[in-house]
Amino acid sequence: MHLKINSQTLAEALKKVERVVNVKHQTPILQGIYLEATEQELILIGSDSTESFRFHVPVDGENLEIFEPGKTVLPKQVSDISKKMKKDVELKLTGFKLSLKSGKTEFDLNTFDPEEFPKLPAFELEKPSVTLKGTDFNEFIKKTAFAASDSEVRPLLTGVCLDLNSEGLHLVCTDSHRLGKVKTDITNENSLKLVIPAKALDRLGKTFDLQEELHLYCESDNQLIFRSGALIFYCRLLEGNYPDTSRLIPTEFKSEMKINRKEFLNAMDLVKELANAADNGKGGVVKLHVNGAATISSHTAQAGKGTVVVDYESLEGEDDYTISFSAKYMLDALKAIDDDFVNFKFQGAMRPFLLTPSESKYEELQLILPVRTM
Amino acid sequence: MHLKINSQTLAEALKKVERVVNVKHQTPILQGIYLEATEQELILIGSDSTESFRFHVPVDGENLEIFEPGKTVLPKQVSDISKKMKKDVELKLTGFKLSLKSGKTEFDLNTFDPEEFPKLPAFELEKPSVTLKGTDFNEFIKKTAFAASDSEVRPLLTGVCLDLNSEGLHLVCTDSHRLGKVKTDITNENSLKLVIPAKALDRLGKTFDLQEELHLYCESDNQLIFRSGALIFYCRLLEGNYPDTSRLIPTEFKSEMKINRKEFLNAMDLVKELANAADNGKGGVVKLHVNGAATISSHTAQAGKGTVVVDYESLEGEDDYTISFSAKYMLDALKAIDDDFVNFKFQGAMRPFLLTPSESKYEELQLILPVRTM
Repeated sequence: MHLKINSQTLAEALKKVERVVNVKHQTPILQGIYLEATEQELILIGSDSTESFRFHVPVDGENLEIFEPGKTVLPKQVSDISKKMKKDVELKLTGFKLSLKSGKTEFDLNTFDPEEFPKLPAFELEKPSVTLKGTDFNEFIKKTAFAASDSEVRPLLTGVCLDLNSEGLHLVCTDSHRLGKVKTDITNENSLKLVIPAKALDRLGKTFDLQEELHLYCESDNQLIFRSGALIFYCRLLEGNYPDTSRLIPTEFKSEMKINRKEFLNAMDLVKELANAADNGKGGVVKLHVNGAATISSHTAQAGKGTVVVDYESLEGEDDYTISFSAKYMLDALKAIDDDFVNFKFQGAMRPFLLTPSESKYEELQLILPVRTM
Repeated sequence: MHLKINSQTLAEALKKVERVVNVKHQTPILQGIYLEATEQELILIGSDSTESFRFHVPVDGENLEIFEPGKTVLPKQVSDISKKMKKDVELKLTGFKLSLKSGKTEFDLNTFDPEEFPKLPAFELEKPSVTLKGTDFNEFIKKTAFAASDSEVRPLLTGVCLDLNSEGLHLVCTDSHRLGKVKTDITNENSLKLVIPAKALDRLGKTFDLQEELHLYCESDNQLIFRSGALIFYCRLLEGNYPDTSRLIPTEFKSEMKINRKEFLNAMDLVKELANAADNGKGGVVKLHVNGAATISSHTAQAGKGTVVVDYESLEGEDDYTISFSAKYMLDALKAIDDDFVNFKFQGAMRPFLLTPSESKYEELQLILPVRTM
């Protein structure tokens, strides 16, 4: 392998694929980045064995010239070094020694055997299972993935369930204490039902340029491939039947309150300072009392009491009730909604309640289980 | 105590004094912030028992009105709460209960007994021992304090020695492997010789507005007081005789090389990536070979070899030598110097070497002990 590349181009390409690379991975070769030069392009792969990024830079005679094809696995230092170089970098592989030259700088680095790097599954680039607008998909993720469980006790609950059929595109995510759901009228000829790890979706959102189209390829039961432009992301799927959440979601309510989302959020944010104090920063419980207005309060023996009153916009049904819930869950849900106003849908102090945007392009809801305080 | 204060004014005042406050301090009252309202001003004190900040806000009829004097120790939540409030805040103390009201928000917080808060030593505001330009003092700190030791084995070496007499102002700091020194012609009628903890100086630099004048008050052997505008900082002094470093600093050299500081720094920064790899990020050793140019290199069995050549500007004396040193110490020293060019002063492969700016308003040097590699 022998090539010359603009150091900026190399640094940016490495940055795209290194997000999954763990420099302390127990398999040393996965601490490195796979690099393959063909006549037409330079391919980079970073992997942590369950998730992988693949990126390619085309030969354009300006930023990249390839003199001799070949492949290697770069040690982690190349990424830090190339970020600090200012000119073109010449890479030349001799056996397992990689020489990196730029001006008066020269590195001779030990590399890994590229044959030992895990192979990525092949797929047909031309035939995605689904194509979505990146911005749409990102929005759907933001409204659901945060509700996933952190605990591996029930692995399926660490994922987001994506259900695409002739009726529409559904995303649901729950950790069994709260649930986020989106239902849009995007349809597709192929039906798909997948559970995607929430952490992988988070990584996807941070790495992809979501202004572009996002292609999903699903050719095996345990792997999903995302592609956008020159970047490809491989992630494993969670196996098993995602719990049927439809029966958990109430449809009849005792009371529906429309309230300014920002004011409600600010009030929660203030009161949670006290709730947190009682709970070592793990979330804390706050109380909502509705009676002519919404009064949010928290009371702990240690710190004292805090109360914020927020006027509601309108209310239908019962106007005198009290319900307690996790401050963190409420804040997460309020942040996931984009609208100026939210509807707070109450069906009893010990029954789950809903938050929905007052207006939305598609169906969207946040469900939270109350906390028993009495 | 009963007062009304602009929430922004309160939040900023709390921010100034809370830098020393440890919310997990084993003495609970030191987790809080002391607040005293007099007819003229509001006084705030944050302390961790060895260091304290004191700030005052004058009554101006606009941002602060005091209806009834009094004192209390605020729990830590007040700081977070006041940052999030948007209007004026009314504080009223009844017994040990503090009520905090702003619009439709109300907090009733438990407070500490102000009589239990440690008293600060009194001092005469009008008679500082020394007055310095804040920007000057900050510059002197940046050129010395980083060289302090992290280890409490020799407590004096965690400090910066400040020596002020009729000959000038001297600052020296060493961890016994490297040393930073500044000597200016600032003189003073009072002689002072103090060892100030480097961490306290760091805190000072981050909290004070160093555009203003800085007054130092030294009325006891174990305490130093800094004042700038409305902010006062109390810190303990390190006791004992700071080692005499003057005999450590060489005055004759075999070779003096003038080199571009930025280029040398960038080269070190590149090569240290390899040196770090060998040393688990703890610094790493690099080698400098001078012969017609400066060649910086690092070689480790695990990662490989890196070499950067930097042309020097001029050289007097021996032009063929090799010396090894800590990459971290070298980077710290190069960053502490402000000039475009540095002079590298060599007196033998196993003898300490000096770095000095090519031009400087005052005497300034960085000394580093080499590392034995052969």
